[in-house]
Amino acid sequence: MAPHLVQPGWRFWRQAACTLGASVQHRTWAGTPRIPRPGSLWGATTTSPRICRSGSSTSARAPEVTLTRERYPVRRLPFSVVSREDLEAFERVVPGRVITDPEVLEASNVDWLRTVRGSSAVLLRPRTSEEVAHILRYCHERNLAVNPQGGNTGMVGGSVPVFDEIILSTALMNQVISFHDLSGTLVCQAGCVLEELSRHVEERGFIMPLDLGAKGSCHIGGNVATNAGGLRFLRYGSLHGTVLGLEVVLADGTVLNCLSAPRKDNTGYDLKQLFIGSEGTLGVITAVSILCPPKPRAVNVAFLESPFYVLIETSGSRAGHDAEKLNDFLEQVLRSGLVTDGTVATDHMKVKALWALRERISEALSRDGYVYKYDLSLPTERLYDLVTDLRVRLGPQAKHVVGYGHLGDGNLHLNVTSEAFSPSVLDALEPYVYEWTAGQRGSVSAEHGLGFRKRGVISYSKPPEALRLMRQLKALLDPKGILNPYKTLPAQA
Amino acid sequence: MAPHLVQPGWRFWRQAACTLGASVQHRTWAGTPRIPRPGSLWGATTTSPRICRSGSSTSARAPEVTLTRERYPVRRLPFSVVSREDLEAFERVVPGRVITDPEVLEASNVDWLRTVRGSSAVLLRPRTSEEVAHILRYCHERNLAVNPQGGNTGMVGGSVPVFDEIILSTALMNQVISFHDLSGTLVCQAGCVLEELSRHVEERGFIMPLDLGAKGSCHIGGNVATNAGGLRFLRYGSLHGTVLGLEVVLADGTVLNCLSAPRKDNTGYDLKQLFIGSEGTLGVITAVSILCPPKPRAVNVAFLESPFYVLIETSGSRAGHDAEKLNDFLEQVLRSGLVTDGTVATDHMKVKALWALRERISEALSRDGYVYKYDLSLPTERLYDLVTDLRVRLGPQAKHVVGYGHLGDGNLHLNVTSEAFSPSVLDALEPYVYEWTAGQRGSVSAEHGLGFRKRGVISYSKPPEALRLMRQLKALLDPKGILNPYKTLPAQA
Repeated sequence: MAPHLVQPGWRFWRQAACTLGASVQHRTWAGTPRIPRPGSLWGATTTSPRICRSGSSTSARAPEVTLTRERYPVRRLPFSVVSREDLEAFERVVPGRVITDPEVLEASNVDWLRTVRGSSAVLLRPRTSEEVAHILRYCHERNLAVNPQGGNTGMVGGSVPVFDEIILSTALMNQVISFHDLSGTLVCQAGCVLEELSRHVEERGFIMPLDLGAKGSCHIGGNVATNAGGLRFLRYGSLHGTVLGLEVVLADGTVLNCLSAPRKDNTGYDLKQLFIGSEGTLGVITAVSILCPPKPRAVNVAFLESPFYVLIETSGSRAGHDAEKLNDFLEQVLRSGLVTDGTVATDHMKVKALWALRERISEALSRDGYVYKYDLSLPTERLYDLVTDLRVRLGPQAKHVVGYGHLGDGNLHLNVTSEAFSPSVLDALEPYVYEWTAGQRGSVSAEHGLGFRKRGVISYSKPPEALRLMRQLKALLDPKGILNPYKTLPAQA
Repeated sequence: MAPHLVQPGWRFWRQAACTLGASVQHRTWAGTPRIPRPGSLWGATTTSPRICRSGSSTSARAPEVTLTRERYPVRRLPFSVVSREDLEAFERVVPGRVITDPEVLEASNVDWLRTVRGSSAVLLRPRTSEEVAHILRYCHERNLAVNPQGGNTGMVGGSVPVFDEIILSTALMNQVISFHDLSGTLVCQAGCVLEELSRHVEERGFIMPLDLGAKGSCHIGGNVATNAGGLRFLRYGSLHGTVLGLEVVLADGTVLNCLSAPRKDNTGYDLKQLFIGSEGTLGVITAVSILCPPKPRAVNVAFLESPFYVLIETSGSRAGHDAEKLNDFLEQVLRSGLVTDGTVATDHMKVKALWALRERISEALSRDGYVYKYDLSLPTERLYDLVTDLRVRLGPQAKHVVGYGHLGDGNLHLNVTSEAFSPSVLDALEPYVYEWTAGQRGSVSAEHGLGFRKRGVISYSKPPEALRLMRQLKALLDPKGILNPYKTLPAQA
């Protein structure tokens, strides 16, 4: 089961819900047929297309994003500047795949949340790890900074340049290398889109061990580089457990091939772990070997109402058994008054529609005004306290203080909206939110990573000795600091 | 389900089975009551006590183990020798817990398989991480080599000194620090015995995510340091996924506290991963935070016969559902002829008795003569080919060529026995076994690690670039090389 917590009653949540209500066919489990109520989820009739996290749907009407170098107090490090000779050299390595067209570059310079904007003048599209190695060897030699980029769906400004770093896109590294249908081991290039991999393995009776809202755009390499969490984390665990092997190109162009790893392998240090969650700062992931669980034969999604909306997904091998257990559970929580209303879906499309309600919250929030976003791990029993606390603290300064997330993982997505960016709201939020979280020994970045925007807060969750060792690892693996600079680790004093 | 593969028909296997047969109460699932057959598992009547992996039961009659420095071509590195002043200094740090009694030291100088023997003259028993830090700071300063030791149940000679390294035992660091009964997070000192932790969390409705034959002796710190696999690996995954946090003392005495990690935490590099499976060569694990799954309400163990013995354990939340699924499966495999005979146990004691058959194979083998042990990962469909291949290759030179292991994980425990150690048998086995495994892109150490005895074969599973990076990490974290020297990484030319 993967319970997900959503606080009810926000305008945009209702909006999101209503867009999909009509397509959600449900069976009632409270013993009586459901009677549509006006304005409620069940009675809604409008529909809207699913919006992909490409940013294009919102960017059309969005204002220009301020350049990161102008908005944030960050100084360019003394890397070389890309010259005409460099472009010619790249053209020899990836002929026809050296992009300098400003319009094409624009989408890769801005993150999908439209919070940061780099000014890179070149984007490279290698197809193989050898090409990546060639590029990095050249950049290392020339002291050129590189910004590895997957689907550009990150939440913390980690996937776009801060200044003029060369964008190294994995978009054309999108080949499945192999799938072993006895063990469920998938080996593929880093640029494969998660949703396409899902389709690939589902046709073979397996599923990907991770699923997230950005699946239509995000790349598996980016997922691994950011140690993406998402909706299957509770059931299948972290990528540190499900990723079996990686091929990584190091800063100096060395290809580190730890790809053909079997499920169990204790021959020396588990090097691949270093790169999982390192946000492209220690090496560029070029291929991934990942363990896929068998596809569940039965999936149920329950969407429950009480003071909170809760989504629960169950998966198992026999529909009758799962339905029996779920029904018993639902009867029990209804009888006890813990749950007051809800619906259950088993059909794939209806399951998808229910999950879409959850997956589109982030997009709905972005339409409510300026969004202050936090992604926190907290003890489950304290998960919502910060939300109620902040409502009092912020008062009418905030449009909404919203808490949703992953109940089973103790992961709160805290979002505060105001009409426009307000320094006084920010001052009321920071460092308060981080101190509150540190006081609970929580994590100030549960699954989003640190990237550019959160790198300054690492010390709320990590002691100085850990930070020191991280810096040593960075210096060891990337002595010139060319890989995704200004990310993950805080700027040095 | 956790299918385990055991090849039938060996004398010692029958012995092991017979010792426990009488206590195995079973229900038949083939439709007819089971009729005890003479000499078969089901009809056996003798019992014997469970033998703990302390080594004492076998060592009483075992010959002296040759000193490692005399048996293997290994040269002592230029560490300092422990002086009287050092002992006095240690006595100030861990008063009354500086052990120099040769009889007490003997058990810690020899591994439980009795294959290697160090000549350490001192064993320290700290109680706290501060004491460990104090000891390492001193040893680092004085250039004294240190051998961290947990339950000394390792299979590759990693847990005992090679020469005169100081033995740093976690035996007195055996306190549970906390258990969070909502999330199932256990935090404890490194010296807690796995079986005691199991009891602790089972009383609270959870289980440990790992289980192995050595559970009565092994320490959780040692489990993590060696990335132990074991019997729950298929279901709950690797320790890289289930370990949430670690406290580690680095070679210079720095305490790295990454213990209070929540389930999701993406704040910087996941440093704890470095130490999981590093066999005490990068730091000394002093405390562990680990995620415990809910205790299954229903457990079934099926023990099946065909050409192979197979143990399958299922766990779930409702006995009736699990029984139904298992019965359907058994009917299907019986009808198809895939399985010819078997038994199913649900009662805890009977389940334990069935598992004991598997867990005592290693002990049984040690009574068959000299044992050549290999622990390999192979593609599941090729798992047994090497066994049949070697039977032909070795002919009458070998008493037995035995393959058992973890079918679901693709993990073969290959054991070859001969009356006594024979260089010609060894020459027939090595490098043949390693080359065969490398040819399948398997792992030459699936779950046992490299320790002292297997460190020379790392290159069959890891490329030179990986080995180079491992050496760089070792040099970064332990510049003087004082932590568990002569282990994991091959000797440098």
